[in-house]
Amino acid sequence: MAMVCLSDFEAYAKKYLPKIAWDYFAAGADDCTTRDENILAYKRIRFRPRMLRDVSVTDIRTKILGTEISFPVGIAPTGFHQLAWPDGEKSTARAARAMNTCYIASTYSTCTLEEISAAAPGGLRWFQLYIHRNRAASQQLVQRAEASGFQGLVLTADLPYTGKRRDDVRNGFCLPPHMKVKNLERAFEGDDWSEYGLPPNSLDPSVTWNDIYWLRSLTRLPIIIKGILTREDAELAVRHGVQGIIVSNHGGRQLDEGPATIDALVEVVEAVRGRVEVYVDGGIRKGSDVLKALALGAKCVFIGRPALWGLAYKGEEGLQDVLRILQDEFRLSMALAAVPALFDPSPNSKFAEPGANSSFTHEQVGGGHWNRLAREVVTAPSLAWFKKHLDKALRHTV
Amino acid sequence: MAMVCLSDFEAYAKKYLPKIAWDYFAAGADDCTTRDENILAYKRIRFRPRMLRDVSVTDIRTKILGTEISFPVGIAPTGFHQLAWPDGEKSTARAARAMNTCYIASTYSTCTLEEISAAAPGGLRWFQLYIHRNRAASQQLVQRAEASGFQGLVLTADLPYTGKRRDDVRNGFCLPPHMKVKNLERAFEGDDWSEYGLPPNSLDPSVTWNDIYWLRSLTRLPIIIKGILTREDAELAVRHGVQGIIVSNHGGRQLDEGPATIDALVEVVEAVRGRVEVYVDGGIRKGSDVLKALALGAKCVFIGRPALWGLAYKGEEGLQDVLRILQDEFRLSMALAAVPALFDPSPNSKFAEPGANSSFTHEQVGGGHWNRLAREVVTAPSLAWFKKHLDKALRHTV
Amino acid sequence: MAMVCLSDFEAYAKKYLPKIAWDYFAAGADDCTTRDENILAYKRIRFRPRMLRDVSVTDIRTKILGTEISFPVGIAPTGFHQLAWPDGEKSTARAARAMNTCYIASTYSTCTLEEISAAAPGGLRWFQLYIHRNRAASQQLVQRAEASGFQGLVLTADLPYTGKRRDDVRNGFCLPPHMKVKNLERAFEGDDWSEYGLPPNSLDPSVTWNDIYWLRSLTRLPIIIKGILTREDAELAVRHGVQGIIVSNHGGRQLDEGPATIDALVEVVEAVRGRVEVYVDGGIRKGSDVLKALALGAKCVFIGRPALWGLAYKGEEGLQDVLRILQDEFRLSMALAAVPALFDPSPNSKFAEPGANSSFTHEQVGGGHWNRLAREVVTAPSLAWFKKHLDKALRHTV
Amino acid sequence: MAMVCLSDFEAYAKKYLPKIAWDYFAAGADDCTTRDENILAYKRIRFRPRMLRDVSVTDIRTKILGTEISFPVGIAPTGFHQLAWPDGEKSTARAARAMNTCYIASTYSTCTLEEISAAAPGGLRWFQLYIHRNRAASQQLVQRAEASGFQGLVLTADLPYTGKRRDDVRNGFCLPPHMKVKNLERAFEGDDWSEYGLPPNSLDPSVTWNDIYWLRSLTRLPIIIKGILTREDAELAVRHGVQGIIVSNHGGRQLDEGPATIDALVEVVEAVRGRVEVYVDGGIRKGSDVLKALALGAKCVFIGRPALWGLAYKGEEGLQDVLRILQDEFRLSMALAAVPALFDPSPNSKFAEPGANSSFTHEQVGGGHWNRLAREVVTAPSLAWFKKHLDKALRHTV
Repeated sequence: MAMVCLSDFEAYAKKYLPKIAWDYFAAGADDCTTRDENILAYKRIRFRPRMLRDVSVTDIRTKILGTEISFPVGIAPTGFHQLAWPDGEKSTARAARAMNTCYIASTYSTCTLEEISAAAPGGLRWFQLYIHRNRAASQQLVQRAEASGFQGLVLTADLPYTGKRRDDVRNGFCLPPHMKVKNLERAFEGDDWSEYGLPPNSLDPSVTWNDIYWLRSLTRLPIIIKGILTREDAELAVRHGVQGIIVSNHGGRQLDEGPATIDALVEVVEAVRGRVEVYVDGGIRKGSDVLKALALGAKCVFIGRPALWGLAYKGEEGLQDVLRILQDEFRLSMALAAVPALFDPSPNSKFAEPGANSSFTHEQVGGGHWNRLAREVVTAPSLAWFKKHLDKALRHTV
Repeated sequence: MAMVCLSDFEAYAKKYLPKIAWDYFAAGADDCTTRDENILAYKRIRFRPRMLRDVSVTDIRTKILGTEISFPVGIAPTGFHQLAWPDGEKSTARAARAMNTCYIASTYSTCTLEEISAAAPGGLRWFQLYIHRNRAASQQLVQRAEASGFQGLVLTADLPYTGKRRDDVRNGFCLPPHMKVKNLERAFEGDDWSEYGLPPNSLDPSVTWNDIYWLRSLTRLPIIIKGILTREDAELAVRHGVQGIIVSNHGGRQLDEGPATIDALVEVVEAVRGRVEVYVDGGIRKGSDVLKALALGAKCVFIGRPALWGLAYKGEEGLQDVLRILQDEFRLSMALAAVPALFDPSPNSKFAEPGANSSFTHEQVGGGHWNRLAREVVTAPSLAWFKKHLDKALRHTV
Repeated sequence: MAMVCLSDFEAYAKKYLPKIAWDYFAAGADDCTTRDENILAYKRIRFRPRMLRDVSVTDIRTKILGTEISFPVGIAPTGFHQLAWPDGEKSTARAARAMNTCYIASTYSTCTLEEISAAAPGGLRWFQLYIHRNRAASQQLVQRAEASGFQGLVLTADLPYTGKRRDDVRNGFCLPPHMKVKNLERAFEGDDWSEYGLPPNSLDPSVTWNDIYWLRSLTRLPIIIKGILTREDAELAVRHGVQGIIVSNHGGRQLDEGPATIDALVEVVEAVRGRVEVYVDGGIRKGSDVLKALALGAKCVFIGRPALWGLAYKGEEGLQDVLRILQDEFRLSMALAAVPALFDPSPNSKFAEPGANSSFTHEQVGGGHWNRLAREVVTAPSLAWFKKHLDKALRHTV
Repeated sequence: MAMVCLSDFEAYAKKYLPKIAWDYFAAGADDCTTRDENILAYKRIRFRPRMLRDVSVTDIRTKILGTEISFPVGIAPTGFHQLAWPDGEKSTARAARAMNTCYIASTYSTCTLEEISAAAPGGLRWFQLYIHRNRAASQQLVQRAEASGFQGLVLTADLPYTGKRRDDVRNGFCLPPHMKVKNLERAFEGDDWSEYGLPPNSLDPSVTWNDIYWLRSLTRLPIIIKGILTREDAELAVRHGVQGIIVSNHGGRQLDEGPATIDALVEVVEAVRGRVEVYVDGGIRKGSDVLKALALGAKCVFIGRPALWGLAYKGEEGLQDVLRILQDEFRLSMALAAVPALFDPSPNSKFAEPGANSSFTHEQVGGGHWNRLAREVVTAPSLAWFKKHLDKALRHTV
């Protein structure tokens, strides 16, 4: 079986993974509408390809929060990598380092964050955090992450409760006995670990924006908030001092029938106005999807399920295959759309201002004048929608 | 078979009910376009989920016409429950009481309204009424309903004649000999009971808005009109003094190719401007559908076919299962959309005015400042449509 | 097999007709897009059903060119009825008379127009005409039609050449030896009758609007033009003195990928402004389709293929079944949409003016103040389109 | 098997060609979205058919760059015709000459351009050119083409790198040993000819608009640029002195998810404002598609895959069949849409100006006042889009 595109890895994983693992990775909430919309929404965005520009060299490197990565695709946090491959998150960390990109390790890992760190020293890693009712447990995770060399803290905002994923309910999903949510093994008492490997109701549904100040007090790491889908929340995130926003709907696993992430990206980017970096996950299946996301204002995208398919195929090596395919496709789509580079060397770049994040240097945030791709590269329905609303808003400012 | 969502009950009912009963419950008029649109229209409405609000407590109670129910989902009137379960409407009444919600018993019940009442004393029940050519028969029903403790009278407005449901015609649908439209057993002479268990042409197609005054003269019960789909009729309903409106297209069983109820809701709510309560039925299949309907202005929704599937599964217990699933899903969707409660304690709530219904106290109508959810929770095509028309209308008022 | 709706007759015909006959009746041009659009376009039009009006009596009679018919559905001209039933057009004529409606007999009949006339004396019939290169042949047809009691002349405008119907080409369609285009048996010399039963290129592709004056000089019958799809041609038709317009795309058998007839109706009706009667054919499959067409301004609709399915089922009796089903469905849809009658007795009806057709009395044209249904009964995309264009046009008139 | 329409040839080719050849011809980039959109976009364009104009004579001849062809359909450049038929491009050249139309021979031919020329002396042929890193190789091709009597040079602009066609990767596509890219047999050293029959990376991705001046310095042939999809690039093409533009997305084989060519045509035609001729390829499957393209401003269309299917069917004869079917369908659609001719004899034609192409006479460019069809013949979504943008633009010019 030739592994030519990401769908090939998906087909492989569906065929070879245990049904309970495949179902868990594939699951969306309720009718899976949002999960599928994440993909369909990309198809509604069309390129306006330009011709006859010199694309003999295409520079696809970028920086996120000041650190250079080889291309603007990182690994989104997903749980339980041992369900896909025996070495679990250690393989993921090695693949990400080999490809010189960022890996966001999940709280729900089947390796400890120290093991992950040790597996691939020097790699760029962020740690994904849920806030537990047992705040001490969360605090310890933050401190362990910082101590282990993780360079960013990703707070998941969209999971006060777990979404209703029907297949997991039907399967009575739980981890096999030899796997554990190892990061939290000693954090909870009792022996009921039935809710996705943790005690029921261990997460704190009363978290609010003010808890970002609490997190800030615990760590010097940049805080990235994941799960933002509206301009209103984007504005709140910036005002509460985060350094980055991941536009995400948790792969369609939480509230079904919300917006596709690529559609939500437009309004978030506009609300943020360059004050912090904006990323997006969900629905990336081709290199050209990455280009679309960047054209609409994302600094970088993150892949969730495709990384798991890569792991399921051949562990570290399979995940590298997935990343390399995306990299090749992304570079090709840049050339065919006649976009030679992501980098704008102009000293007048409008994103050069230090912004509101006083605890981070300009170098970290603005990142050497890397800028957004011109929106002229694509036409997107959500862009039209945005323009309409912008027109409306502007009308009142005259 | 795990019963995880309402579709599971539908599949069960389709498999285990006699074909003639399944067909009768499932039937839509003509091409079943409106029946199916009721469901599809919900999918076109998208949430705008907010994050990081305290949703540790979600209060899903509401009041309809002043009576508190455990959550905003009641049982719509449907006929012939004995086709689904031997105890028929008695089981339905018990399940509704157990879940502390409202049951609208149909004229076309296979138990008398006195039997229904006796089966679940103390439960909140409304009685659904058709007006017959034999007005005395209808008058007696109204008086029996009031005497038996029913707390509301639901006048069905959309059935001057029965819609053309092809499968019922093919099946030659009639009730099995051991079932009867027991509420009307002594109301008609002769022995031709071939039209859905009643004599042909027993319903009065000459009913007009003025007959609401006639009904009003018969009873002190609040009158709710069911079957309204346009702003024009909503205005007429309010002006003729009803206390509530159920936006309904009879489950798509009457005029095919009219609007989906959730689309019609928007214009009805706008026309009513809070003067009476507005409910909606048709197409509710998930807890998040309930949230959408409330966000668009419904005070409560009613379920028809899903209740019958629950009955078909396990009678009273099965129907409780259906309601409980909807309740859990509704609460979860509120939390994931960051809507902690339906209740607005503000004394300045704009719906606190007594309105035009002088025979009902403020407590009954406005119901302690319960209000509509903010429309910001969803984006709906029909909302856009409405806004456009509103803009147009406002333009002329300047 | 219960014959409940028109699709049942279609299924029967497809099963029992010879393939070559079924294919000929079913054929559309090229990809059959327009043929299918005729049906789909009706589904995009939605009712706005009103409630609680007295619909105990629904009057569905109407008049076309001054003659009363039992309901606004006639038989469109279609060819070769003997392919469907041995008695051919004689059965059609009898069924139309029995149902008291109008039958438009085709030039391409397998009975002579005299035979058709004799089969059902007193029935309302119009004769459909093509103009042949041999003008004498056409002239004789006109004179025979008038002499045989036909009351209208329907000029088909959309067939300068025959559309490309792929299945007919594949089948090498021709009439079986025992059937003939009997109206034209002696009109042409030679023995090549291979083009749909006539000599190749017998039709005249040089016909222009001025030929209507030629036709007018041949007969005192009203002239109805069939095949108009644009406002421009509707205006030309009125100016050239026709008495009626049939909006038609020949059942999708001529130019593929033109508009659906119900969509074209809106602009034609608007252009005509009541000066002549406007009819429509194509895509009528349910009684509610008739109501939609009337709401959009048609005076009457004509059915093509469904009539053939009725014939194929049981000849005269089968066609009566089809018409009776449409009649029942139409009456029911009127009641459910709360439209009690088509007739407006008001002396101020705006369609009472004699109009520009000086050779016809007001009685024949305006027909006793029958008027169009209020457009409020439906919402149609094409209506929206029309309104937009109207707005545009009006803007320039200020 | 009756060969009635182009789909019949497609079915034949799919059945009889070797899989590797079929896959190569059929391939689109990535998900094949653009390949399929090219076809679907035509279906969204609707005719507005007019009636009763004299269409007894329809003149379908046209001129491209001053040379008359029998109808506005030429052969687009496609590679490796020997994969379809043993005689390869020699058969193609003969068929094009026989039908009196233009054949654009590809650089990637399996015959030399001299062989192609000798096979059909006197035929109208253009030569398609890629610019290689080895500029001498390209220069020689230009000079050989001019010397062999080719009358135009078609520069492909959309292939700095080859698009990702998954099936070709899976199949490990390469030419069978007995076929060669004969035009370039002596142009490259080494023996790695693995990239579509050429050395890897032989094409020059650094080509820019200025290279058109270089081409101009090499030849007196008119230069036509192929692969333009935006108004911006159309303007650049005109400014750099090309004589023609082929709106093309390389049959959907390069950047996936760009616009359909018929949609892009509208903005290109508008930007060009008659200064050079505009052609289009991609998605033509019926004669009426040709009419749509002309109505939207194309001077001529070119067919790619359908020509290959014709070759696969019966070589030269099969390709003539394909062209003849398109010709007949095109003529019929003109008649049915009531467009008697493409030719406008008016001396006041607005396209009579010599334009910016000083090295070409008016005769060659304007071509005797041939003009665009009136846009009134069709309604196209892209046209609506264009008008909206035009309105916007005009607003700022007031």
